[in-house]
Amino acid sequence: MTDTAPDELDRLLDDAVAAAAVLKGRPPAERAGWLRAAADALDGAADRLLPLARQESRLPLPRLTGELKRTTFQLRLFADEVDAGAYLHAVVDHADPDWGMGPRPDLRRVLVPLGPVAVWAASNFPFAFSVAGGDTASALAAGCPVVLVAHPGHPELSRATAAVLVAALEGAGAPSGIFAVVEGQETGRALIQDPRVAAGAFTGSLRGGRALFDLASGREVPIPFYGELGSTNPAFVTAAAVAARGEEIAAGFAGSMSLGVGQFCTKPGLLFVPADSPVPGLVAERLREVAGAPMLNDRIRSGYESALRTLASHEVVEVLEGTVDPADDPAPVLLRTSAAEVLADPRPLTAEVFGPAALVVEYRDDEELLAAARVLEGQLTATVQGEPDDQVVPALLEVLTERAGRVLWGGWPTGVSVTYAQQHGGPYPATTAVGTTSVGTAAIERFLRPVAYQDLPEALLPEPLQDANPWRVPQRVDGVQHP
Amino acid sequence: MTDTAPDELDRLLDDAVAAAAVLKGRPPAERAGWLRAAADALDGAADRLLPLARQESRLPLPRLTGELKRTTFQLRLFADEVDAGAYLHAVVDHADPDWGMGPRPDLRRVLVPLGPVAVWAASNFPFAFSVAGGDTASALAAGCPVVLVAHPGHPELSRATAAVLVAALEGAGAPSGIFAVVEGQETGRALIQDPRVAAGAFTGSLRGGRALFDLASGREVPIPFYGELGSTNPAFVTAAAVAARGEEIAAGFAGSMSLGVGQFCTKPGLLFVPADSPVPGLVAERLREVAGAPMLNDRIRSGYESALRTLASHEVVEVLEGTVDPADDPAPVLLRTSAAEVLADPRPLTAEVFGPAALVVEYRDDEELLAAARVLEGQLTATVQGEPDDQVVPALLEVLTERAGRVLWGGWPTGVSVTYAQQHGGPYPATTAVGTTSVGTAAIERFLRPVAYQDLPEALLPEPLQDANPWRVPQRVDGVQHP
Repeated sequence: MTDTAPDELDRLLDDAVAAAAVLKGRPPAERAGWLRAAADALDGAADRLLPLARQESRLPLPRLTGELKRTTFQLRLFADEVDAGAYLHAVVDHADPDWGMGPRPDLRRVLVPLGPVAVWAASNFPFAFSVAGGDTASALAAGCPVVLVAHPGHPELSRATAAVLVAALEGAGAPSGIFAVVEGQETGRALIQDPRVAAGAFTGSLRGGRALFDLASGREVPIPFYGELGSTNPAFVTAAAVAARGEEIAAGFAGSMSLGVGQFCTKPGLLFVPADSPVPGLVAERLREVAGAPMLNDRIRSGYESALRTLASHEVVEVLEGTVDPADDPAPVLLRTSAAEVLADPRPLTAEVFGPAALVVEYRDDEELLAAARVLEGQLTATVQGEPDDQVVPALLEVLTERAGRVLWGGWPTGVSVTYAQQHGGPYPATTAVGTTSVGTAAIERFLRPVAYQDLPEALLPEPLQDANPWRVPQRVDGVQHP
Repeated sequence: MTDTAPDELDRLLDDAVAAAAVLKGRPPAERAGWLRAAADALDGAADRLLPLARQESRLPLPRLTGELKRTTFQLRLFADEVDAGAYLHAVVDHADPDWGMGPRPDLRRVLVPLGPVAVWAASNFPFAFSVAGGDTASALAAGCPVVLVAHPGHPELSRATAAVLVAALEGAGAPSGIFAVVEGQETGRALIQDPRVAAGAFTGSLRGGRALFDLASGREVPIPFYGELGSTNPAFVTAAAVAARGEEIAAGFAGSMSLGVGQFCTKPGLLFVPADSPVPGLVAERLREVAGAPMLNDRIRSGYESALRTLASHEVVEVLEGTVDPADDPAPVLLRTSAAEVLADPRPLTAEVFGPAALVVEYRDDEELLAAARVLEGQLTATVQGEPDDQVVPALLEVLTERAGRVLWGGWPTGVSVTYAQQHGGPYPATTAVGTTSVGTAAIERFLRPVAYQDLPEALLPEPLQDANPWRVPQRVDGVQHP
């Protein structure tokens, strides 16, 4: 992709700043309407967008159809959140002459939008983590204009989606400048360093994301950068679980790690099993039935092959199933090592391989299992396949709670539902901002900041802080939550 | 202060990690008890601590007595928040086969402690922003052990307060290692770079805070760094307000800018008044009555004098009242310039001068007032002295909302009440983390991170996420907040 011309970027950022100022003065209910109009327009454009996505991403149509549904559902769910108003976290403390530390003034706090947000689209979800994806939806829901850096993997789809999105938003009454797409790596670097940009959101590689995080943190005025940089998503199988449902576990893992040619940030890349368990053999058997399939693009394929070669060539790793250097579209690859080896050299053995490969790690006993879990870096997810009365489970859950954003029991991490409780984040390197999520309604909070008003007359207060509460938002009043 | 020996720091950090593990397993109600025990013990030690504070900070006794009251009130308020449990933000989504984007699993999200926190004490509040101050209280409330870097301005008080705090916490049942004091600048630099530290919190200078922020962001595993770096706290007086209550405004400003020898991060350092207003003269008159007083320590005094000399020597600045190079303890200094000059050279004219000095900025009309407000950097506070029907006020409040964490009407920014709605933060350089506050109950959220659990059996779920809700915490269940 050719970089957006610098003067074009400059103009788009000026427009975004102007839009941010307009957005501040408009009630959230209006914004919710824009989000719903965008969802409707995207659904209406499915016939046009899906073939483009199919062509540029090489992903099968049913998957893309489901992803578009997820994308428009997400826009509508954020619209509902905006309407409900809890996301504003309105807090009202009336003046109190008898307050414990001395008389307190009237203080009222609400969240306000940060300003223009830079978003980087991901390659592997051409709808749900791209132009109209989760970062865009949550930033717009917060009241922040978005300048999005298109992913070079699906340039035509990005332009077409942006056209639909912009027409729908502006057609519904949103200010011009509320959304724009730009292109190119240098444009992205200029964007994150521009004083008009108030925050960044990114889904992609550790290297690319860290470089942008460093630029965002190194600015004269540092800004928050929400980078989702990847994860190995370990899964832990206890001996009792193997005994109870070894075949089911093997089938589930094989399905999850090979789903979408392993191109999910939540793909389980590590499977901890008891030594001498039948599970690795059963997984290999299942994987043998999975045909090769094209990866998203050549760059991702060559990155996959390079990472896989590195892992497979580690002297303690053996190939259980599949070909490390396939001539055709990659089919799943299963590798094996031991927990003792992971403890001896954790970093290279537990690094993410983005694609249809996974490493089985055989452990001798519960202590070794826990020790191996403790050397893992931050993760988006961690999965336990255990039985409720397993001795090791409470300790394992405690270790995984420290290391992962989402902890699963008896399921598999691919498939990230968009809900109120979802958490798609985790300690670094899973993300650059451990306190945040990029999926689920809490994602909106990344693009807001608190402001308190002291002793303002009712008429000058923002609506959510007025005693009359014209927007009917939840308020915490003098310490008590309503409703 | 001599630096803490590296092996001593190492031992304290190991202890903090061990304490963090213990803390996770203990119910919040127990932690609330520890905080109350700490508050009681500090109140009980007042006779011992106050003279030390008096001696090391040169602050008057009534001020220190009030500050200690604030400090223990704060610990108890956080204890109440911990008991109430809303800070956990528990969210429960039951499995739903009919969820709009496709069947959703059971997902439940709660906030958990980050782990050991490094805190830097401030010089100007030897109790409330020091050893047992707001950062310590909020980190402990969140369930995070604290390693605190004592301020060299009050070493004996720091040691004595730490001894009281540790004895009280551990006496009430807290794990050993939950709190420790260390000393020295190099120790601080080692601390923020140590892999065992999960977050930093700092109140102090722009230079010192930025250096630590850069270290925190530059780590292999970056961590959040909550730096409160200072502010000029502009106050804006409209023509109507001058007409209605010019004398009252002058008296209020003089009192606020000279309070505590101007050594507050919320000291109003800029006063915007209409040209040819009597206010500057009235302020000068009031300030003439304020005697010189000792500053916190010699380093702060020399920093003050240097910053003041720089500002006063700017060719567009004139001295209205006071002496720039006093022989004795500094008395208030009032300077004057015009809004046109601020617009021409904003940075040096609006830089913070920590001490009893302020700059009057005369503006010609509302447009110039708004233009000057727009060139200001991020602020902890901004104050408007206006009349409710002032034409300029809505636009001014909008500009100030963008630039400040707290916007005041008709009062003065010194005096930061500890409440539910308080916001002590703001865009950089006021703070390094625009979404957070270091005062008020929301400060606790800085030290927490979300974790979601998918399909966990009730018995394995953390208490706040169980359907039985044994801790009786507020839960958002399937999108609806209870209570």
